[in-house]
Amino acid sequence: MRNAALAVTVLIAACIIAIGAVGGAEQQPAGPRYAENRLLRPTDYREWIFLSSGLGMSYGGEHGAPQFTNVFVSPTGYREFLAKGVWPDKTMFVVEERASSSNGSINKGGHFQTDLAGIGVEVKDESRFPEKWAYFQFGPDTKTSGPAPKSACWECHNNHAAVEQTFVQFYPTLIPVAKRFGTYRQ
Amino acid sequence: MRNAALAVTVLIAACIIAIGAVGGAEQQPAGPRYAENRLLRPTDYREWIFLSSGLGMSYGGEHGAPQFTNVFVSPTGYREFLAKGVWPDKTMFVVEERASSSNGSINKGGHFQTDLAGIGVEVKDESRFPEKWAYFQFGPDTKTSGPAPKSACWECHNNHAAVEQTFVQFYPTLIPVAKRFGTYRQ
Repeated sequence: MRNAALAVTVLIAACIIAIGAVGGAEQQPAGPRYAENRLLRPTDYREWIFLSSGLGMSYGGEHGAPQFTNVFVSPTGYREFLAKGVWPDKTMFVVEERASSSNGSINKGGHFQTDLAGIGVEVKDESRFPEKWAYFQFGPDTKTSGPAPKSACWECHNNHAAVEQTFVQFYPTLIPVAKRFGTYRQ
Repeated sequence: MRNAALAVTVLIAACIIAIGAVGGAEQQPAGPRYAENRLLRPTDYREWIFLSSGLGMSYGGEHGAPQFTNVFVSPTGYREFLAKGVWPDKTMFVVEERASSSNGSINKGGHFQTDLAGIGVEVKDESRFPEKWAYFQFGPDTKTSGPAPKSACWECHNNHAAVEQTFVQFYPTLIPVAKRFGTYRQ
């Protein structure tokens, strides 16, 4: 019986490990990661949930062809937003800026996306930031970034965003969700 | 010992079920689903992997503001493409067509996305289609769609797509993957 008990114990342990491995294969990172006061660049955001793209919406002065902006949100935040209409702590957004091009391959009009110009990251981290949300800018190869000053991003998001600090007014699939939960600010 | 053996058997079964449940929570559908000869509209494509957006790239005659086209690929196909540079059987693509707008909310220039106009679906299904790939068009509310005639989509994809039947030349994150595996056609 001692051997049988041992076998059961080993099996339970193996089962727990196997469940962890299978779950982990699909698991998204829990949230933002920092090195001291700097945010580490999120590396897997292209596998997050896509919310929308714009063309020429960048706020900075544009030179030459307009940029595309692709917005992604971390999957855990997305799922909780669908269920409750609010963003849970540790939600992350990435706005990816890409150059645009025209007349390539079979394309004779319009614009398509090419090189990465940079990413902006918005983080909800209530225990770390007194204003709850913070903003970070990364160049194409930047690995870490300190929070932007409040006047650079936070104020505009605070004054004009439809849901908390997020521009849900530009994310067509989320507008009806927020309206249903009464969290949409006109 | 008979009880111990039974306990072990039950544990193994429970473990297999638990692994299935944990894995399944994140699992994507295996591939295209049909009702007779018609493809069922994929309902979860907004949670697939985003590849790129274009503006005004639609091939049909455009009326008024240009459309955005958002391209998504099924996660299983995406992961295998990253590993091998080719698309596995049952890979699905969705090109989502959305209206564009300008001068909304704080936006004073450029274009952002609004209402859904329709989706096009590209399916690799080697056992079902002699040409391996097939194409389907859905309006905003269409639930099923029959395959488009070969001249409508297949021929252009076959003649001009960079990887198999897919326009990887317009998906900037996949171009280096295909080139690394030697599957990119100039």
